[in-house]
Amino acid sequence: MYGIGIDLGGTKTAAALIDEENRIVSKLSVPTEPEKGNDHVADNIAGLAEKLCVDAGLTYRDVKQMGIAAPGAINGETGTIMRAHNLMMEDFHIVDRIRLGTKIKVIKIDNDANVAALGEAVAGAARGTACSVMITLGTGVGGGFVIDGKVFSGFNHIGGEFGHMVLHHNGRPCNCGRKGCWEAYSSATALIARTKEAMERDPSSELHNVYKELGKVSGKSAFIAARRGDKTAAEVVDEYVSYLACGIVNVINMLQPEVLCLGGGISNEGAGLMIPLQKKIDEEIFVRGIGRSTEIRIAQLGNDAGLIGAANL
Amino acid sequence: MYGIGIDLGGTKTAAALIDEENRIVSKLSVPTEPEKGNDHVADNIAGLAEKLCVDAGLTYRDVKQMGIAAPGAINGETGTIMRAHNLMMEDFHIVDRIRLGTKIKVIKIDNDANVAALGEAVAGAARGTACSVMITLGTGVGGGFVIDGKVFSGFNHIGGEFGHMVLHHNGRPCNCGRKGCWEAYSSATALIARTKEAMERDPSSELHNVYKELGKVSGKSAFIAARRGDKTAAEVVDEYVSYLACGIVNVINMLQPEVLCLGGGISNEGAGLMIPLQKKIDEEIFVRGIGRSTEIRIAQLGNDAGLIGAANL
Repeated sequence: MYGIGIDLGGTKTAAALIDEENRIVSKLSVPTEPEKGNDHVADNIAGLAEKLCVDAGLTYRDVKQMGIAAPGAINGETGTIMRAHNLMMEDFHIVDRIRLGTKIKVIKIDNDANVAALGEAVAGAARGTACSVMITLGTGVGGGFVIDGKVFSGFNHIGGEFGHMVLHHNGRPCNCGRKGCWEAYSSATALIARTKEAMERDPSSELHNVYKELGKVSGKSAFIAARRGDKTAAEVVDEYVSYLACGIVNVINMLQPEVLCLGGGISNEGAGLMIPLQKKIDEEIFVRGIGRSTEIRIAQLGNDAGLIGAANL
Repeated sequence: MYGIGIDLGGTKTAAALIDEENRIVSKLSVPTEPEKGNDHVADNIAGLAEKLCVDAGLTYRDVKQMGIAAPGAINGETGTIMRAHNLMMEDFHIVDRIRLGTKIKVIKIDNDANVAALGEAVAGAARGTACSVMITLGTGVGGGFVIDGKVFSGFNHIGGEFGHMVLHHNGRPCNCGRKGCWEAYSSATALIARTKEAMERDPSSELHNVYKELGKVSGKSAFIAARRGDKTAAEVVDEYVSYLACGIVNVINMLQPEVLCLGGGISNEGAGLMIPLQKKIDEEIFVRGIGRSTEIRIAQLGNDAGLIGAANL
């Protein structure tokens, strides 16, 4: 038996056929084109599922289930996208709509950050754990919480918004309307903003050379300049690590996951991020020196986490 | 069948016989006297269990299980108090030790805040919910998380430390060593400290009259003076409510419990606390206007939550 995983984004809809060992057998994608309407988006998904099956010489009977990772507020129970700004959708019963175009019986949907956490839990960095949390450091800070191989997102299925935990009461404004959210400090967007501020503050910083080399300011800039010994860049990295550790320790103190995976662009920094981060976490953790501790690991599956997770919903 | 719940505190060890409807049939208590050693504390518990049974005319066969709510870091799997300062215990296999003095077969133990959350979930304000969180506003800020009638405290059973979630990075120092923990803002201890500061700042505040009436500064002082129209006291209450709402919204954004119960002394303020608190929560919550929302309720069982929860571990 196979599963089909769909990663529904504002720009692209990706689909993968996944085998029982959670390996990706084949992948396809099409532009999402949300401006063409909800039905268009749903038909795309049904079409991708059909093409994956036909290309692999499978019938619908060979497919156990299809799962969809979607952005925004999702109700997995009713199969509804309740609100997703970059899909221009509100209260759309997408699962019911997709059913019209496919014979696959079981169709599930959940928030993309939750689904990525599930992917890492079944086939990635948190494989074999009783409970895990995944934090994605990208444009925003996404989160997902998995217990015994199932996404936990609360009684109404809209939890897992770890990025919207306030770490600094009345701090930096966040897109969600609150002030001081984790996302406002630990997203790549936040890191880039801090890096630009530091460049303005210090015209002699190595950050300016890094800017010329990369042709832009990115989430890597401060890490590169700090490695070259630049003090201003090191301050940016220090502050970034401090807030990242703060949020991670908060999660550990509350939930004590067996593994906490870090994903998204910033997690590619490797040792330059992980060594100071682990040091800060060890200093701050509530219960020290007794029992086993949460392991911090870098996510393994990249963009495939959503596809594999979706097939396992 | 009956259960026995034990609430093991630094000063007092309370025990209750609980029936199948989670009603307390009888209660007993003795001084804990931790200075007399671990075995003394364990023997007390076995003795209380025996007396409860004898007084009720029951044999050990009528008792399904005994549960213990204990302070500090507890490993429920091994039945160990790993660290509990006010019991002067470290790495004490208390369950094994109690077994020597009783014929009750099933003996369980967990952290007191987790157990109180379980009590409210099975028989109190969160009865009948799929998942709930209880936050206790007392000397510290305690927390417990219950899913499907079971305490969730992570893979190593030391989670649920909601009070040690930082809300204000580099903020007020907390007993745990971090800065800016929820406990440093929303405990009764914190509220009393802020009230005293306000009294020093404003010698004409109504808080001084309230002090004379109560004979002390307590967690009620600011609420009483604010109700009488005192501006300084109202500022203390506003700040308190603001941090309390901040922590609660953080928990909701992450876990979306069906009910979040507030317990401890401060929760007795009733409408004076709950009305401004709910308003602030509604303003800050991440997902608004779609789906069902977490209900904030005042805990119902008081000190009995630990006894009833323990019998249900």
